[in-house]
Amino acid sequence: MENFDKYKELVNEALDRFLEVKYPERIWESMRYSVLADGKRLRPVMVLEACRICGGNIDTAIPTACAIEMLHAQSLIHDDLPCMDDDDLRRGRPTNHKAFDEATAVLAGDALLSFAPEVIITKTPSVVSDSTKLEVLEAFLVAAGAHKLIAGQVVDIESEGKTVSEETLEFIHKNKTSALFELSLFCGAKIAGASQEKIDALQKYAENFGLAFQIYDDIIDIIATTEELGKTAGKDAKVQKQTYPALYGLEESKNKVIELCKEAKETILANGLESSLLAGILDIIEKRIKK
Amino acid sequence: MENFDKYKELVNEALDRFLEVKYPERIWESMRYSVLADGKRLRPVMVLEACRICGGNIDTAIPTACAIEMLHAQSLIHDDLPCMDDDDLRRGRPTNHKAFDEATAVLAGDALLSFAPEVIITKTPSVVSDSTKLEVLEAFLVAAGAHKLIAGQVVDIESEGKTVSEETLEFIHKNKTSALFELSLFCGAKIAGASQEKIDALQKYAENFGLAFQIYDDIIDIIATTEELGKTAGKDAKVQKQTYPALYGLEESKNKVIELCKEAKETILANGLESSLLAGILDIIEKRIKK
Repeated sequence: MENFDKYKELVNEALDRFLEVKYPERIWESMRYSVLADGKRLRPVMVLEACRICGGNIDTAIPTACAIEMLHAQSLIHDDLPCMDDDDLRRGRPTNHKAFDEATAVLAGDALLSFAPEVIITKTPSVVSDSTKLEVLEAFLVAAGAHKLIAGQVVDIESEGKTVSEETLEFIHKNKTSALFELSLFCGAKIAGASQEKIDALQKYAENFGLAFQIYDDIIDIIATTEELGKTAGKDAKVQKQTYPALYGLEESKNKVIELCKEAKETILANGLESSLLAGILDIIEKRIKK
Repeated sequence: MENFDKYKELVNEALDRFLEVKYPERIWESMRYSVLADGKRLRPVMVLEACRICGGNIDTAIPTACAIEMLHAQSLIHDDLPCMDDDDLRRGRPTNHKAFDEATAVLAGDALLSFAPEVIITKTPSVVSDSTKLEVLEAFLVAAGAHKLIAGQVVDIESEGKTVSEETLEFIHKNKTSALFELSLFCGAKIAGASQEKIDALQKYAENFGLAFQIYDDIIDIIATTEELGKTAGKDAKVQKQTYPALYGLEESKNKVIELCKEAKETILANGLESSLLAGILDIIEKRIKK
């Protein structure tokens, strides 16, 4: 997937540039610490690929791609706090509140929540219309807030240690995980001026991919080591987190992932969206799951 | 100040309407708990008054007024957390993390940070142009983030227990307190389509008012009781917070407030902005300080 590495480099370079250290340095350094940590950059890469396959110029989507990565980093910083998942390790390094302190971690997350949409407004080239910028911003804010990301997190916390229905589990995954993939593909397509049909197909892909990715992540949490993960392994079972593998076992979970990947692939193909990158990400997940 | 009460009612009614409880109820109830608590509503009232005296229709500024009140509530929720000021009482009631729990308080603050600008986008009448909406949003996000509000909070935390310069103290006040008053008057004026000259005058008023208000607040913290305040009194001295009265004594602080109020009043008058409300707020502060 040649584009993947190229996109990742563009995003990393832009994030480094946007997150310039200013006074008071501690807060900007804390923001940089988490955002610039080594990550897959799946969400921003999807923004750029959606933009490209819908006929857009990827340069126009880079600020939004970076904003979504900042939002992802923000949600990890706050999820890792002692009052939430209380985790010490993230992306192979101490979590933000361990590297800095709790107050700084709360404020760094808050600062990213404001800085991310600010970057969309101030860094998106003027060739993108004001009305498109507002549509992208609205989608961003809806995904980030109590309608989606935070709704998923709240229900996730409420469900710990309880047996939940498949519906509840899907609500958590759809809002905690799929929402940002949906947002990424929506924004990339919207900035490119894509048709509603293409946007719908990409949203459908994101929904299937997001669920597949979450179940895959939960399977990996069981079978991988902490070193391989870069975050604490076996954590889900320890806190009795409700996961697909916990509820349905490893085999059925693997089958579900394979089925979702197949659906996702068919959705984009049926709508004339050719992307070796979007197909390739599904292949990687399928391959790892089959091992 | 007849308009004050009218504006306050309009804002409270709109906040109640915008913050409709949805699933998962706990997060929306936690957001409502802090936003709808009894407050002076100084900032949203200023948005509406700036809009009116610049010739605008106040209905067009109500969503932005509410957004700024939500941002204010958010900053209070997170400032009160155990890892920050660790306070139990706010606006006469238990703080958010005491009434709910720490995780919910962190998430309610996060949710408000996204919901506030969402309300500006989705609830501002279409008579306000997209480019004005984007200018208002940008100012909102800049004020909320690491450039201003959070910069002030970070330097405030870093300064606790240390002797700081007057410059540092002004940096904290300018960013933690004045920034939201400046934002309020800027947004109200901008939505009304005010001239740059009027906007500048209102910004100057806000800067003086903000500093006066902060010093006034610090004086009150020393001379009032917890019951009168609705939050823990004498807290600043206890945590050795750097305040104007702590550094310069009560008398010099009172004189500073009176001087700042005088300057603020002159600024708006000199620019043909007649507002018994903006003048009246200054009178109240002066009167209370002189007691």
